[in-house]
Amino acid sequence: MNQANPSSESPLLLEQLDSQGILTLTLNRPKQFNALSEAMLDALQSALHNVDERVRVIVIAASGKAFCAGHDLREMRSHVDEAQGGERWQRELFDKCCRFMQTLTELPQPVIARVQGLATAAGCQLVANCDLAVAADHCQFGVSGVNLGLFCSTPSVALSRNLSRKRAFQMLVTGEFINAETALDWGLINRHVPDEQLDAAISVLCEQICKKSQVAIATGKTLFYKQLESPLAEAYALASEAMACNMMSEDASEGIDAFFDKREPQWKHR
Amino acid sequence: MNQANPSSESPLLLEQLDSQGILTLTLNRPKQFNALSEAMLDALQSALHNVDERVRVIVIAASGKAFCAGHDLREMRSHVDEAQGGERWQRELFDKCCRFMQTLTELPQPVIARVQGLATAAGCQLVANCDLAVAADHCQFGVSGVNLGLFCSTPSVALSRNLSRKRAFQMLVTGEFINAETALDWGLINRHVPDEQLDAAISVLCEQICKKSQVAIATGKTLFYKQLESPLAEAYALASEAMACNMMSEDASEGIDAFFDKREPQWKHR
Amino acid sequence: MNQANPSSESPLLLEQLDSQGILTLTLNRPKQFNALSEAMLDALQSALHNVDERVRVIVIAASGKAFCAGHDLREMRSHVDEAQGGERWQRELFDKCCRFMQTLTELPQPVIARVQGLATAAGCQLVANCDLAVAADHCQFGVSGVNLGLFCSTPSVALSRNLSRKRAFQMLVTGEFINAETALDWGLINRHVPDEQLDAAISVLCEQICKKSQVAIATGKTLFYKQLESPLAEAYALASEAMACNMMSEDASEGIDAFFDKREPQWKHR
Repeated sequence: MNQANPSSESPLLLEQLDSQGILTLTLNRPKQFNALSEAMLDALQSALHNVDERVRVIVIAASGKAFCAGHDLREMRSHVDEAQGGERWQRELFDKCCRFMQTLTELPQPVIARVQGLATAAGCQLVANCDLAVAADHCQFGVSGVNLGLFCSTPSVALSRNLSRKRAFQMLVTGEFINAETALDWGLINRHVPDEQLDAAISVLCEQICKKSQVAIATGKTLFYKQLESPLAEAYALASEAMACNMMSEDASEGIDAFFDKREPQWKHR
Repeated sequence: MNQANPSSESPLLLEQLDSQGILTLTLNRPKQFNALSEAMLDALQSALHNVDERVRVIVIAASGKAFCAGHDLREMRSHVDEAQGGERWQRELFDKCCRFMQTLTELPQPVIARVQGLATAAGCQLVANCDLAVAADHCQFGVSGVNLGLFCSTPSVALSRNLSRKRAFQMLVTGEFINAETALDWGLINRHVPDEQLDAAISVLCEQICKKSQVAIATGKTLFYKQLESPLAEAYALASEAMACNMMSEDASEGIDAFFDKREPQWKHR
Repeated sequence: MNQANPSSESPLLLEQLDSQGILTLTLNRPKQFNALSEAMLDALQSALHNVDERVRVIVIAASGKAFCAGHDLREMRSHVDEAQGGERWQRELFDKCCRFMQTLTELPQPVIARVQGLATAAGCQLVANCDLAVAADHCQFGVSGVNLGLFCSTPSVALSRNLSRKRAFQMLVTGEFINAETALDWGLINRHVPDEQLDAAISVLCEQICKKSQVAIATGKTLFYKQLESPLAEAYALASEAMACNMMSEDASEGIDAFFDKREPQWKHR
């Protein structure tokens, strides 16, 4: 799947949209362990901004041995002089990163993390923030900023929405890493596979999603995150509205007809 | 436990209240896999409306091989004509279903799902929405509406309040089923047992609940769901009030006296 | 670790602050299974009130065989006369207990439960409410107030923020106990170890925390609980602010410099 050229200058590689509608964004700073520099975050935000309805599913992948080591420490360290607007620069960087993370959730397409190596700090946050995540068996996950005097506060937002709170707090306060098996057990990832099967596992998941009705997936993902933040009565009111609206779509009628006819559905909005 | 006559015409069978106060509602459209038609939902809501304080625990059971296959697709499909008020009909159906699901939570009595077969879409939502669930070993659980172009948006409300979000999203977007072992591991059910032990397991759970003070159970269940939706400080304020009120009941004094006297308590509000 | 004298009259023993900054509070009513009497709660609140920045981590430990059996039933039972202001007394007791539990969360220092024995009702709540918990293998955990006609409503607040809801509800409504293995699997504790290794396990965890920058830990813990109660966008805004602020601290610069220099950091705010 990942045919990106790691020697390229660009911090982010966009694979051409394939016929199924799978868009792969490949973090491409392998020597910097794909650290999320300002330029990388800008490239990611721009790529997401350009996603249109031909895209059915987005895969976030990475070049080299690490998936993502978090923020770019050298860049950050060079902007701590208060006289030169250091705090403002830092705040803008983290706001940019938070904006990117939330955009993943706001997009109507499912976003899958393809984790081929170490995911640290904001790299672990990225895994947590994707809708789905598949990892190679040997991967490790950690929010170890605390070891550098920088608690992983922004990663804690995504992590604590995936893991139970004592587990999240333990990772954040000790800086310890967990392996793929524990990440699966704790709900941080959906599956782990031997390294050589990672592309196949991502393909299977993408194909499952691409076979569905696009309008159903888009309606459902949007509703899913909206209702998660609502009290029960409001959540059900939002869901009921989404469901009635989805039911009135041509795809729902076609899907139900195909089910009764025991044939494959032909989606209008595939 | 389930002595309901599956040949009956009624979509819902109400077993006579037994001496312990166990009320069993049996979904009774076995040929339609107990699909939640409008008539079924009306019957369920009406049955819950008539629950009085003689009822100590409610069991939701089902006739035939499936527990519940979700909504009635044929009925829904026949109401998609916009000129004939289709969207309004759909919205009323889902509102009705959401009302039923929330009533389960609002009732002061614990509600147990007795899952003897497949639980799909709104059937899986019903399992998730009950306070407790016990399933036969062979049962499978899925929110597969997405395969028909109809994302399980209303089921996602209950599912995402039982499962961690990546697991819930995976089920919703792939339509894949999980078995009873996974359902237990992920927190969707409380226990699974061999098929022939299902009635015994339900009886044990009902008897445990029926032995408690009714006022304690009612106070506790109401508080439990209320505090879940509140920020920590408000949750504790609500709980403190509930606790003080419960402590002033005759049953609490009797329970504590019996504990010190090493005898069984005699509840006033059994 | 626990060198407290169990024959002392005080309901709570404060170990002298050691050179690392570990403060151990030992519940010391072993014959009453360390029940949280009004005097015990006052002593705990007072001890937490006196915590200053020399304290790096707080351990809640207990004397005798039980960790904590919850509230003091004899004391509570003697205050149920309405004519003598019973309800008011009860409300003040539970408010006091809720205040103590929330203070644990509000303190900038991590709080670890050292669970050497049975944790029941408010004792189980105390485990759930600490940031981290390590237990001896043989420990059991339960919210069994329902057996005495007194549903564990206040414990349900902490329990349901650690466990998935069906598991929490099951424990609350049946009064059943779970063992340490299940408590770990369900997220109530972080680790369980053979009894004789409990002190060593607590020491390892404390040392891990004491090696970090104090400003990073304090910033992170405060943000962690604040963001947990916020919708996603607000959570990220709060976290971004905390992160930028943390990044401008001397400790973050020192931590990053030490990382690049491959040496141990020298924290200003150890």
